[in-house]
Amino acid sequence: MRDKLQHFIETKRFEAFITAVIVVNAIVLGLETVPSVMADYSWLLGLLDTIAISIFVIEIGLKLLVYRLGFFRNGWNVFDLLIVGAALVPASEQFSVLRALRILRALRLVSVVPSMRKVIVGLFSAIPSIGTVIIMLLLLFYISAVMATKLFGAAFPEWFGSLGASFYSLFQIMTLESWSMGIVRPVMEEFPYAWAFFVPFILLTSFIVLNLFIGVIVNAMAEATDEEAHGEREEILMQLRALREEVSALRRPGD
Amino acid sequence: MRDKLQHFIETKRFEAFITAVIVVNAIVLGLETVPSVMADYSWLLGLLDTIAISIFVIEIGLKLLVYRLGFFRNGWNVFDLLIVGAALVPASEQFSVLRALRILRALRLVSVVPSMRKVIVGLFSAIPSIGTVIIMLLLLFYISAVMATKLFGAAFPEWFGSLGASFYSLFQIMTLESWSMGIVRPVMEEFPYAWAFFVPFILLTSFIVLNLFIGVIVNAMAEATDEEAHGEREEILMQLRALREEVSALRRPGD
Amino acid sequence: MRDKLQHFIETKRFEAFITAVIVVNAIVLGLETVPSVMADYSWLLGLLDTIAISIFVIEIGLKLLVYRLGFFRNGWNVFDLLIVGAALVPASEQFSVLRALRILRALRLVSVVPSMRKVIVGLFSAIPSIGTVIIMLLLLFYISAVMATKLFGAAFPEWFGSLGASFYSLFQIMTLESWSMGIVRPVMEEFPYAWAFFVPFILLTSFIVLNLFIGVIVNAMAEATDEEAHGEREEILMQLRALREEVSALRRPGD
Amino acid sequence: MRDKLQHFIETKRFEAFITAVIVVNAIVLGLETVPSVMADYSWLLGLLDTIAISIFVIEIGLKLLVYRLGFFRNGWNVFDLLIVGAALVPASEQFSVLRALRILRALRLVSVVPSMRKVIVGLFSAIPSIGTVIIMLLLLFYISAVMATKLFGAAFPEWFGSLGASFYSLFQIMTLESWSMGIVRPVMEEFPYAWAFFVPFILLTSFIVLNLFIGVIVNAMAEATDEEAHGEREEILMQLRALREEVSALRRPGD
Repeated sequence: MRDKLQHFIETKRFEAFITAVIVVNAIVLGLETVPSVMADYSWLLGLLDTIAISIFVIEIGLKLLVYRLGFFRNGWNVFDLLIVGAALVPASEQFSVLRALRILRALRLVSVVPSMRKVIVGLFSAIPSIGTVIIMLLLLFYISAVMATKLFGAAFPEWFGSLGASFYSLFQIMTLESWSMGIVRPVMEEFPYAWAFFVPFILLTSFIVLNLFIGVIVNAMAEATDEEAHGEREEILMQLRALREEVSALRRPGD
Repeated sequence: MRDKLQHFIETKRFEAFITAVIVVNAIVLGLETVPSVMADYSWLLGLLDTIAISIFVIEIGLKLLVYRLGFFRNGWNVFDLLIVGAALVPASEQFSVLRALRILRALRLVSVVPSMRKVIVGLFSAIPSIGTVIIMLLLLFYISAVMATKLFGAAFPEWFGSLGASFYSLFQIMTLESWSMGIVRPVMEEFPYAWAFFVPFILLTSFIVLNLFIGVIVNAMAEATDEEAHGEREEILMQLRALREEVSALRRPGD
Repeated sequence: MRDKLQHFIETKRFEAFITAVIVVNAIVLGLETVPSVMADYSWLLGLLDTIAISIFVIEIGLKLLVYRLGFFRNGWNVFDLLIVGAALVPASEQFSVLRALRILRALRLVSVVPSMRKVIVGLFSAIPSIGTVIIMLLLLFYISAVMATKLFGAAFPEWFGSLGASFYSLFQIMTLESWSMGIVRPVMEEFPYAWAFFVPFILLTSFIVLNLFIGVIVNAMAEATDEEAHGEREEILMQLRALREEVSALRRPGD
Repeated sequence: MRDKLQHFIETKRFEAFITAVIVVNAIVLGLETVPSVMADYSWLLGLLDTIAISIFVIEIGLKLLVYRLGFFRNGWNVFDLLIVGAALVPASEQFSVLRALRILRALRLVSVVPSMRKVIVGLFSAIPSIGTVIIMLLLLFYISAVMATKLFGAAFPEWFGSLGASFYSLFQIMTLESWSMGIVRPVMEEFPYAWAFFVPFILLTSFIVLNLFIGVIVNAMAEATDEEAHGEREEILMQLRALREEVSALRRPGD
């Protein structure tokens, strides 16, 4: 019985069916944003959504039945469980935020389509090599946020009034959005030397982000371009070793 | 007769002539935007434009005569047909949009100049390797647009009032144009936690776009740098195999 | 005695202890920005800060005792000395800027954690190969700042009134922040041909910055991807040389 | 006599002297922007500038004497001649633009310092491989400018009133500066479908500029990383060929 079930939920057809349900569910949730559709077909969209959730719950139930605790060993299963579980909690209709989160279910597409899964796995595999750089970026942000709050917090509470506000403003400055006309020039009217804080901040974050990019690029390229070359060099080495053995055989007395 | 025609339209001279007509036509259409020129020479520009279109129609007619259905097998021919065909439809002068589209004929330059054609072909050849990433970007946009419409649509109808408006606003935010001062800060006055939606959106789109870039770069580099190295390794392998055969011959009894 | 001390300060445990003090100190300095915490625990934060500084002073004192003049041969030691020393100078509480600089002590994390140290060393090692490009960028900035000051300084003193103001404005323009709507369009109302100065400036700085990036990327990639391939090629060469020797031995008369 | 002169102007010392004059001249021209310095030392700066120009004129005169027509075969000489010549034309003091251009003389530093010359030569060497892409970018700009002028010129004369204005506005949009809040949203109030013109324009220019970058990067990397690997592969091939000859010798009857 359990083997039969396992066979069933691992067929291509079952996967395709779940993918279709995810896509239909995503379209239904998108249609909910169209007022004219909601006016007439609100009940239909609600019904379709309920059906989709039911299918997801049954799917996860089946997987739990089949794999039991092994279910939790696969990160993608846990991901699916969290997303579908979140849909069940906000049964009450008053939390519009929780209702808006339902569209996150469309993210299940990533866990179902193998090629997308690969991109995400690639992302996580790059983390070790860029982890240090990310921590340095966070350290720079923390130091800069504390300094900005102490230096400019009193005069510009909206931008640097608290650590959180400073973090947000510095993130904006890092993206270069309105950093000068919007923030630094006004600040410089109070503190003429503010540029000595913000210009190095921009240069340093740019440099660290460049390092992040390089880390990811080097990772991707090393994988992509070297495999073929590496294979060919392996082949050359193998041929060489075979050759040496043959030459050695030539020298052996009993030849 | 058909062979002669084919020979004629495949000569370098015919190609050069068509290229010249495209360039002259593009200049004529550009001059139409200069009021002082239009005041005096409107009739001349109109005449030159008519002549250019006639030449294009005759050119395509000849190609159809020569290649018959084979004409449609070449994507560039279909591209030319559409662009020139579009010029014939808006015979009436009232649709200014359609008149403005006539300058698209200058795009024929791409289909006529081989080195430009190669750039476009290179673009399409990169699509398979970046297709998944593009779909993930669209998925992220769709999910974010639905969420933004549900969360902020009522309070900020101009930016997030409908799925389309949200798509446009999110595209603007992805390009980092006025994302904070123009959009997120005003939104945060109503929804103080809006940054928890927009900052991850920016980080995720940046990461996905970085992946797109890397895909294109890796593609281009693998092609460019590996060809020579690959050739050299092939040569090494060939030499090695020849060597092994010679050594084997040494060991054979009849030697 | 001195050997014992050296052994002590070079243990993993001592390093971990100093790292912990740095982190706690950074958190304490961050909490100083929270008004509600400062209202009640100002004395505690001050005490913790004093303890942290004392520990740092003792640490550096020990290192001076152990390494004596050798202490100054290590750049990281000098870096630590400067940062901790700066904390001692502003004993008076009136200089808020100097108080704000205390958080820079968190930068000691970089000098203590080896993987971060490596990133910084990597940065400095890239400088020789990009030094020329940086000097060219500075030269371009200097020439452009002098020109902008002479051309637009009288009419737009806020942006180009002095060399310093021009440097800042050109840096803003290089980052593309509000360059057109904020600066160049207003300037063009006075000087219609101002675009002939600013557009080439943007193109040139973009090109030079691109060159900087390429320098850093090429550096990083050459290091990362070639090591393995280089090792394999070395192995191939070694095998080949051994083979030649064996073949030579075959030919030698005494065989 | 001519040989002696040639020897003299090709010494390291002469080169260093000219470099020093260029640097001093650049500083003098920079000081002219400082009002307090100009008030007291205007005469000194003018004198130093005259001396510097005289030295440059004599230098170029000597080179012309020595190399005669060969002088013009070196692009850097022509570059120097143009820059110094430009300084002589505006003898009259009324043209402030021409006076401002004098600082361009500092660009001579590039023609004098070999490592900077190399960067510029590298730039020009990349042009063949990116020439087609640049022409495609210009073609896209021309087509878009003509369309924008015809579609939006009447309603928004400041931005798209003429081909020139459209070119400038499209360049601004390509750099993403205020493209949406500043230009496209206002345009969309008149033409609701304007996004269908501007969003593809942004995507296309981004793609073409990415192609430009890749062209330059691939160029630089192919040069940088492959040389060593290529050398090693050459060595491997050489060893292999030597080996084959030795093995062949083994098989030869007279052995």
